Amino acid sequence: MRLVFASTTKDPQPWQAELLRHLPELDFRVWPDPGLDPATVDYVLVWKPELGVIGRFPRLKAILSLGAGVDHILSDPGLPDAVPIVRMVDPALTRGMVEYVVHWVLHVHRDFHLYRDLQARRQWEQLGAPETSEARVGVMGLGVLGSACAKALAGLGFDVAGWDLAAKEIPGVRLYVGNEALPEFLARTQILVLQLPATAATRGILDARALATLPEGAAVINPARGELIVEKDLLGALETHSIGYAVLDVFATEPLSPRHPFWNHPKVTVTPHIASLTMVPSAAQAIAANIRRIERGETPFPLAHREAGF
Amino acid sequence: MRLVFASTTKDPQPWQAELLRHLPELDFRVWPDPGLDPATVDYVLVWKPELGVIGRFPRLKAILSLGAGVDHILSDPGLPDAVPIVRMVDPALTRGMVEYVVHWVLHVHRDFHLYRDLQARRQWEQLGAPETSEARVGVMGLGVLGSACAKALAGLGFDVAGWDLAAKEIPGVRLYVGNEALPEFLARTQILVLQLPATAATRGILDARALATLPEGAAVINPARGELIVEKDLLGALETHSIGYAVLDVFATEPLSPRHPFWNHPKVTVTPHIASLTMVPSAAQAIAANIRRIERGETPFPLAHREAGF
Repeated sequence: MRLVFASTTKDPQPWQAELLRHLPELDFRVWPDPGLDPATVDYVLVWKPELGVIGRFPRLKAILSLGAGVDHILSDPGLPDAVPIVRMVDPALTRGMVEYVVHWVLHVHRDFHLYRDLQARRQWEQLGAPETSEARVGVMGLGVLGSACAKALAGLGFDVAGWDLAAKEIPGVRLYVGNEALPEFLARTQILVLQLPATAATRGILDARALATLPEGAAVINPARGELIVEKDLLGALETHSIGYAVLDVFATEPLSPRHPFWNHPKVTVTPHIASLTMVPSAAQAIAANIRRIERGETPFPLAHREAGF
Repeated sequence: MRLVFASTTKDPQPWQAELLRHLPELDFRVWPDPGLDPATVDYVLVWKPELGVIGRFPRLKAILSLGAGVDHILSDPGLPDAVPIVRMVDPALTRGMVEYVVHWVLHVHRDFHLYRDLQARRQWEQLGAPETSEARVGVMGLGVLGSACAKALAGLGFDVAGWDLAAKEIPGVRLYVGNEALPEFLARTQILVLQLPATAATRGILDARALATLPEGAAVINPARGELIVEKDLLGALETHSIGYAVLDVFATEPLSPRHPFWNHPKVTVTPHIASLTMVPSAAQAIAANIRRIERGETPFPLAHREAGF
């Protein structure tokens, strides 16, 4: 079988090496490959591919994503209709996200951003100990990554709620389901963690109105997708102290422009889309397992839902 | 029964209110109390009391500590010999310590201190994803707090080892016991977490030689006692890059002098002894339970070992 790797940002070499360890019979090609007959390609493995590339292959068995999100695939207007899109679920990816979220929730909960400012002023001042069981954290989006984060935060003793468009069940986490439950969920959330995919239903979901529904001084942590937040509304809410702190790993435009006001904002931590990096060895293993499933006639896991957008 | 509260730093009011909720029959006094007959006092409840105060009461049933350490009691040369010293163990105190340690281990593991510097330079640069299972964390001191930290870090997937003078057993944690095992423990530890009490055996244990035994670029996290570290040796090791980063919550002299070089050191995070603050409600409950045990003729928990110094 033949696979084409297509990405505008990622290096194919480590993927080739790891995939061939699991699938020695795989013919691994890198886009563009001028001598290649498109009708002989079984799989595309993609991360932010050039628009139109996927549609060039008429006999694909599957489109395989290199990352957790599939918005980089669904945004292609030339996407073939009938080909299954396989998302990336990988224990290392999940662990990375849980680490990021646990770290930054603890960071704002324990006032470490304020202690950093006190250190800069050489000021020894104990701010008092917050009660973890009274700290209300809210996780928006309860897919594989969001559920794992909610579970880990509940395990640390936080008062955790979760919101999603579909009903879910997570032990120890209070659930809010659907758009009508969103205001109530936001109103009780002091530390908001975004874990939503970028879809037609979620783009701009954190606008001025949603931000104003959060309690005064709430913190926002976004390691999901930049398009979820209306950035100028967030800047406005930080200005008026309606939002107390923001930790942002993703942005409407990446890399973040050197002139963007987030960089030197005293109430913003910027990280360069590193919350959860795909780790080649474990991710290649997950991809190889899905290719083998398809070759045996089984269903790969997990499939993206095109209508839902993730 | 009668209790005297003696502290040079803590406010007695909240302790009085919470203790009386659990023990309404308690006669709560605050040192100094001129009209008080010292022979009628059953308990002293202390945190950094004036030297010599404890020795004034000839008929004490117990000396109760307000914090996890008892070095503030044992350093009093006028301490009566036969009176049991009761340490503070409180689930809230343990949880606070676990939060602090988990947060700062993740912080250095995930390079957030480096991303902070990149943000200051408006630089978008992904530093690569470290493998958690290959990150070797070492916890020195496996008492109640140290064991809880080691367990939590192992649960997050770190490669955790522990060192103590006495043999312990913690699932998923490799044990190193005694002074002869210390060099081997240090040599394998990339992120060192101090959880030792300050005793004759541990003061200055992290000196130039011990620091040089850690691998190049190791991180040191100290939320235990300032006296464990020879501060000028740590500054020297940071200067030569033998130590890559230090997170310090405790210091040889507290509050840390405004002129101390730790404050504005680019490789040091300073927090003002807040890793684990005694929370009055749960701590008062633990103290009341111990007073009731003593009144019933039972042994309070946990007793300090004077010879060991903790």
